[in-house]
Amino acid sequence: MGLAIISPGKNIDAWIQNFKSLDPTVQIQVYPEITDYAAVDAVLLWNHPPGLLNEFPNLKLICSMGAGVDHILKDPALPKDVPITRIVDEKLTWTMTNYVIMGVLNHHRQYERYQQQQQQKVWNMTNPELEVRIGILGVGALGHDIADKLQYMGFPVVGFGNSPKTLAYPYYFGDQLQDFLSQINVLVCMLPLTPKTEGFLNLQLFEKCTPGTFLINVARGKHLIERDLLLALDKSYLSGALLDVFHEEPLLSNHPFWEDSRIRITPHIASVTNPSAAAPQVLDNYHRMKKSQPLINQINRIKGY
Amino acid sequence: MGLAIISPGKNIDAWIQNFKSLDPTVQIQVYPEITDYAAVDAVLLWNHPPGLLNEFPNLKLICSMGAGVDHILKDPALPKDVPITRIVDEKLTWTMTNYVIMGVLNHHRQYERYQQQQQQKVWNMTNPELEVRIGILGVGALGHDIADKLQYMGFPVVGFGNSPKTLAYPYYFGDQLQDFLSQINVLVCMLPLTPKTEGFLNLQLFEKCTPGTFLINVARGKHLIERDLLLALDKSYLSGALLDVFHEEPLLSNHPFWEDSRIRITPHIASVTNPSAAAPQVLDNYHRMKKSQPLINQINRIKGY
Repeated sequence: MGLAIISPGKNIDAWIQNFKSLDPTVQIQVYPEITDYAAVDAVLLWNHPPGLLNEFPNLKLICSMGAGVDHILKDPALPKDVPITRIVDEKLTWTMTNYVIMGVLNHHRQYERYQQQQQQKVWNMTNPELEVRIGILGVGALGHDIADKLQYMGFPVVGFGNSPKTLAYPYYFGDQLQDFLSQINVLVCMLPLTPKTEGFLNLQLFEKCTPGTFLINVARGKHLIERDLLLALDKSYLSGALLDVFHEEPLLSNHPFWEDSRIRITPHIASVTNPSAAAPQVLDNYHRMKKSQPLINQINRIKGY
Repeated sequence: MGLAIISPGKNIDAWIQNFKSLDPTVQIQVYPEITDYAAVDAVLLWNHPPGLLNEFPNLKLICSMGAGVDHILKDPALPKDVPITRIVDEKLTWTMTNYVIMGVLNHHRQYERYQQQQQQKVWNMTNPELEVRIGILGVGALGHDIADKLQYMGFPVVGFGNSPKTLAYPYYFGDQLQDFLSQINVLVCMLPLTPKTEGFLNLQLFEKCTPGTFLINVARGKHLIERDLLLALDKSYLSGALLDVFHEEPLLSNHPFWEDSRIRITPHIASVTNPSAAAPQVLDNYHRMKKSQPLINQINRIKGY
């Protein structure tokens, strides 16, 4: 028995090298060159073709190659009763946090204003800072790390989530969204993508924000109704946005975000899964599955994360 | 007796408001409208005219309006034996640290590369990070705060200073400059400006750096030999620089830094003294001087900080 890697269009050499050096006994097949579907009892996935998993008669474990599992759960023909795990990678968390703090600081210290001043040879020292109060939507492993580091740096931070939590910073949940939004003027989306959170960043929410709130979305493109962002900027509900994720990636060349000076975009690089950190987790779960031991980082299908 | 504020060309309304609300009994005169020089026993200074302090026959305390005292010590006619204090302001430290971390993160995560990609509508996800190891030249109150926060964020940090110290990160001093420079590829200058540190950032030092080191100078313009920076960039000893301070400020309109794409400049806004935090320190020292008590944040004239 063995593992199948299904990740169309992605270079997986680093994954295979890591698996081979960690445990050369595990048999690995790579889609679409799979010859023996019955010999596969675990799959490692990123954007697999919907329905494909039903071809594996002995499947006992589904592993996401990243932190998110929305790309797996959206498959309407996903086999039931097979456990799903995701990657929790300190390096991934670290890169994500650094990206968000960069975004917060560039907004707070008006980095682009000073770039423009340099271009125009203008020396203007007035009002060097914008006051910021940062709200983190979704304080799981990733969101909490951002909140913790920003708090250590001395910034006011507030969290929002689905369920009650006790945290070292103010936290709102459930129907307290308005209370949360009125505390903050920088909104960082760190939600998992689920049917409940798809389209969460919409005009109705932006209307409830402190006018001029700055948006950072590093979660998933589908959290944001993209046309609503443009409306919210036009109406000054928001003052600007830093986006790393989009409905369609790569972003289409005629997409209005490219040329909108209020929007700064990066090509889905806020966090990157590091195979050398993630491969041991996948192998660990593979061996746990074999021995019927509890899995690590297993997700709850009903919650979606 | 009372206080004179000498800060030509600067708006000092906020200082005066703070003094009046904290202690309305202190007599304040503002240069050049000083009518009674003999009634002044303390001065609060920023870029005072050299020689002027000898006009005050009863001077017992010299206070800098900021963290630095180089603007005071450079006066060749500075009265001897009058103690000098500086401002140690948490808000000043906080703004300085935020600026430097912004600079480090923008370099690490190649913010300007992604701005260019957006302009050209290019979606390129490869190599999203540059590895960084940060060296702080001068780990006093300000430099240490930067090192502490960067270390908390998970970055490798190394310090360099004048005298031996025990710190939570590797630290070099005195003649160990080469050891320090070979550990790092981001160099942050936080030195005080003294005759020993003037021109410290010169071609000879840049030659000793790891090729491609990124320079951040937020201390004083005179730490840097400006033509040597251009040479070091041409020779790839350095890959770029973020500068907040210059020999002459405002930066002259024909200065080559304005149009050099390898150099990012800001108009001396990395840290700003906050009168509401600083005025109580000045008043505290004023009353301590009156009661012959030890002063806070007194500087050592021989060391220059």
